[in-house]
Amino acid sequence: MKLKIKRELLLENLNKVSKAISTKNLIPTLAGIKFDLTKEGLTLTASNNDITIQKFIKIEEDNMSVEKEGIIIIQGKEILDIVRIIKEEEINIEVIDELKVLIYTDDEKIKYDLNVINKNEYPNVNLEKSDNYVVISSEQLLNIVKETAFATSTDESRPVLTGINFKINGDILECSATDSYRLAKKEIRLTKPVEEIYNIIIPGKNIIEFSRIIDGEEEIKLHIFNNKILLEENDLLFQSRLISGNYPNTSKLIPEDSILKITGNLSQLYNVIEQASILTTDKEKNIVSLSTNGNLLIVKSVSNEKGKAEMKMNIEKNNNEDITIAFSAKYMMEALNALNTENIEMSFVGEVKPITLKNTEEDGLIQLVVPIRTY
Amino acid sequence: MKLKIKRELLLENLNKVSKAISTKNLIPTLAGIKFDLTKEGLTLTASNNDITIQKFIKIEEDNMSVEKEGIIIIQGKEILDIVRIIKEEEINIEVIDELKVLIYTDDEKIKYDLNVINKNEYPNVNLEKSDNYVVISSEQLLNIVKETAFATSTDESRPVLTGINFKINGDILECSATDSYRLAKKEIRLTKPVEEIYNIIIPGKNIIEFSRIIDGEEEIKLHIFNNKILLEENDLLFQSRLISGNYPNTSKLIPEDSILKITGNLSQLYNVIEQASILTTDKEKNIVSLSTNGNLLIVKSVSNEKGKAEMKMNIEKNNNEDITIAFSAKYMMEALNALNTENIEMSFVGEVKPITLKNTEEDGLIQLVVPIRTY
Repeated sequence: MKLKIKRELLLENLNKVSKAISTKNLIPTLAGIKFDLTKEGLTLTASNNDITIQKFIKIEEDNMSVEKEGIIIIQGKEILDIVRIIKEEEINIEVIDELKVLIYTDDEKIKYDLNVINKNEYPNVNLEKSDNYVVISSEQLLNIVKETAFATSTDESRPVLTGINFKINGDILECSATDSYRLAKKEIRLTKPVEEIYNIIIPGKNIIEFSRIIDGEEEIKLHIFNNKILLEENDLLFQSRLISGNYPNTSKLIPEDSILKITGNLSQLYNVIEQASILTTDKEKNIVSLSTNGNLLIVKSVSNEKGKAEMKMNIEKNNNEDITIAFSAKYMMEALNALNTENIEMSFVGEVKPITLKNTEEDGLIQLVVPIRTY
Repeated sequence: MKLKIKRELLLENLNKVSKAISTKNLIPTLAGIKFDLTKEGLTLTASNNDITIQKFIKIEEDNMSVEKEGIIIIQGKEILDIVRIIKEEEINIEVIDELKVLIYTDDEKIKYDLNVINKNEYPNVNLEKSDNYVVISSEQLLNIVKETAFATSTDESRPVLTGINFKINGDILECSATDSYRLAKKEIRLTKPVEEIYNIIIPGKNIIEFSRIIDGEEEIKLHIFNNKILLEENDLLFQSRLISGNYPNTSKLIPEDSILKITGNLSQLYNVIEQASILTTDKEKNIVSLSTNGNLLIVKSVSNEKGKAEMKMNIEKNNNEDITIAFSAKYMMEALNALNTENIEMSFVGEVKPITLKNTEEDGLIQLVVPIRTY
């Protein structure tokens, strides 16, 4: 293999695939990035037991020149460090023998002579595509991640809750995330209906990782298999395992009626909850109480040690009922954050029933926060 | 005590004094900030066993209004969090009784009712000034910190090396820092000679803290006592303990002659050392070797596991000698960083003797790096 390539182009793509480098180093080979050079271009692949990322860089005028095709596995951290620290515009990568690769600049004032990983030890990565893929836009994918992923659980004792549930039926994609204390649910209409019915769980941290490396201006193809999913954006392939198990039926958690609905300015509501919460601690679940008194909303917190906080703001109500309810300020703020709108609607069924939050202008997204009993 | 004050003014000054809040909380009182309000203004004080910071905010038109004088100790973290999170321009602070303070906005939509610390439990902070203070400019102090503090030791087993040695004699201030692997030495000429001779050790982390909170446009007064120093910039007082013990005589460490001097571009030298060092590890002291070959400087590193790096640049020499010497890339880069100039001069006495680095345009600063034997 012998190649001259624009440094920034290589760096940008190494940064993407390197997200799949295993840092645990249980299998040293998985700390490597595979360079596969052909007359068509350079394919970079990195894989750990959880995800595989592959990026194809097509030869275009001036972006690289291939002198000799070939395959090599280079330590991911080292090649990234090197390509990052060189300031020159182009770098040369040249395989000397099966165990050595030279990385150097044209003037040879910078020269690295790296030991490589035996390519026979590298796992056979099978990135299978499906003919019946599902299509969503990058924007839709980014919204799903932003609006639901935060509500996944980090507790590995219930693995299904660490993922986002994707249910696809006809032209409806329904994404749910819950850690059993709150629920985020987003419904999307697909432009191209799907024949099969899908009900899968994608690991939350994997889809977050994918959302960080996409260009964000293209459509995304979802190739769904029994125990894995391949996400495709242009020349970027991202494969993740799926979480097996049954995802809880979240539809029945969402209250159908309410005793009171209030509407108010989202950022003002966020502020009063944040301001009330600063005397609370994470250890005590950052509990604040919310109560209505006519058109006044009062958010309070009490700490025996530190003191009391009390914030007020104006709201509108759909009837004359009043409510007092307590919840985790942290969870409520994350739910508000995900709604990303000017005004929101909060529905109450009672002081021990979930609080429903909705954007007043869009129906596709629901956030649910479970109250905390304080007595 | 009753006070209305501009929020940003209070925040700015709380941020400064809060650097002395004890986070360890061994003595709960030391987590507090003392508010002392008189008709002249507000004095904020925070103190732990190591440093005391005091800031006086003078009443000026429109910056605050005092309704009732008084003293109160408020939890430092809480008052900082509150003043940070309130968005209004002015806030009110009102003591209700000996144990409660109200913090609120004019419209009372934001209200905190905080438990306070008993003022009788607060230590008696004695910030003594001396008539024979030493004067340096803020710029000189910032330079001392930037150019020497990094070379102090973090190893508490030899406490004197965790400080910066200040030796003052007549109009000469000599500052040294060493962890025994490198030495940074800065000499400054004082505008006002001093009668007494001083030889003190100021804890490195304390003077760094002070350098971060000064305005940087004023002169600094150093009030030096037997076991403490009071640093004064306008209305800011910063007291630190001094480290007791004898500081090593660093003058005799600096080689007087050399077998070879090289001069070269500092940032280029920094780059080649950094580029060579990326295959090395902190654990192995980031060893790189430097050798000259005519007017070529070659910096190399070798890692059995990863491979080899070799960088080249052009330099000038004062004679035809050549040298090969090895050192910690990290220490050399920190020394280069502190020199902050275009061209530097490196002097060698031999491959096991300290390397001297100097700015080619200024004589006051010397950096020494001890080589590492690699055989």
